[in-house]
Amino acid sequence: MLDLPFLPFCVLLGGLGFVCVIFVSAWCQHWRGGFALDGSAQMFNWHPVLMVTGMVVLYGAAALVYRLPPAWSGPKLPWKVLHSTLAGAAFGLAVLGLAAVFRFHNDHGTPNMYSLHSWLGLATVLLFSCQWLAGFSAFLLPWAPAWLRALYKPVHIFFGSTILMLSVASCVSGINEKLFFSLKNGTTEYKRLPAEAVFANTLGLLILLFGVLVLGALARPSWKRPDADSPDSCQVPSPLRGPAG
Amino acid sequence: MLDLPFLPFCVLLGGLGFVCVIFVSAWCQHWRGGFALDGSAQMFNWHPVLMVTGMVVLYGAAALVYRLPPAWSGPKLPWKVLHSTLAGAAFGLAVLGLAAVFRFHNDHGTPNMYSLHSWLGLATVLLFSCQWLAGFSAFLLPWAPAWLRALYKPVHIFFGSTILMLSVASCVSGINEKLFFSLKNGTTEYKRLPAEAVFANTLGLLILLFGVLVLGALARPSWKRPDADSPDSCQVPSPLRGPAG
Repeated sequence: MLDLPFLPFCVLLGGLGFVCVIFVSAWCQHWRGGFALDGSAQMFNWHPVLMVTGMVVLYGAAALVYRLPPAWSGPKLPWKVLHSTLAGAAFGLAVLGLAAVFRFHNDHGTPNMYSLHSWLGLATVLLFSCQWLAGFSAFLLPWAPAWLRALYKPVHIFFGSTILMLSVASCVSGINEKLFFSLKNGTTEYKRLPAEAVFANTLGLLILLFGVLVLGALARPSWKRPDADSPDSCQVPSPLRGPAG
Repeated sequence: MLDLPFLPFCVLLGGLGFVCVIFVSAWCQHWRGGFALDGSAQMFNWHPVLMVTGMVVLYGAAALVYRLPPAWSGPKLPWKVLHSTLAGAAFGLAVLGLAAVFRFHNDHGTPNMYSLHSWLGLATVLLFSCQWLAGFSAFLLPWAPAWLRALYKPVHIFFGSTILMLSVASCVSGINEKLFFSLKNGTTEYKRLPAEAVFANTLGLLILLFGVLVLGALARPSWKRPDADSPDSCQVPSPLRGPAG
């Protein structure tokens, strides 16, 4: 497509991810009453912040680790550890984000898991937990045979993009749902499009843009590791594989 | 990944698309009062049916035309016409689906274009209109130069997948929003998860599955036309390009 080098794109994408985190935090701090750990609506506010930070921004960073040119040569193990650590941190934030909303619901007698947003969001996190465990077992633990890695690698890549797409859809439906819940009265009704609604709608579009850019970067052939189609079974440079390691 | 041939996959995917259309129609017919053209809530019901049928199912079919093995050889023009016609039909249904919701809002004094769902949905349809027009001008009209087609083709492919992703996110947020609007009273409250909520949540997950399968099929290297990386400038078999045409 456009001949943009990866690193400037990465800087722009990092800036956009940072803006997403700032926007979701500012929304919760300025319009939704800030943060607490007491089961109140302020505890709920951790939910959007942790999900956007974990399941979108950190997840996107984890997905793009192997696109960094320094990851193309030398031992692959440090990059696998970085990929796995970033994904593990994303998963940890997602679990805390789920704990925040379950605690808020339980303390208010609100049922859990009834909306399409909740079904989709939980399915996404469960799929992510399977993806992380299977990736760790197949690619980081030393005893998976090469044929298993070769078989599983394209599945891992496919679900990597799929989970990001599901995360973004979960965020959009969640922001939409929260605005209908919160903006009900008089001049702040959602349909009157008060400042909060414009701000949070914009957040939703920025999250979508971030997700689309990550998926586009992952699909771009010239940004893939030169040996991206290999079975990924080798963690140290092999004399048979040449300087690309 | 799995060595599934394209045609059986296509039959399964077609079945899933059909189930999505049946589900959204049954939801609107059985629980939301059926269909009309009078600006009432029954007119609104055309909105989900037309958007799912157009922007997801027909759009997905249009996107996969070049993956059909018969499209790999012989003149490319008939397949371009089929791709363009299916996409045009999808766009036509989307415009009718937008007309249904705008008419419903206007007849009820409800503002248009305030929710994140509406921003995302309209942005998706506008992006689709640009995509269709640019694709038609570059690839079907005979006067676009080869260098322009070569430059635009990867952009068209990238936005093709992106628009489907945005469509699916729009559908999920729209179904979620509609259920919060509609299921408010006593035993049918959304949070009590009545039969309608289970049914429409399932519809949302089926739409997501359809979108993920189409995006997966588009990304699968072995299902691409053997000359998929060519600038796509040739509409008839060329002696220089061999039997793959």
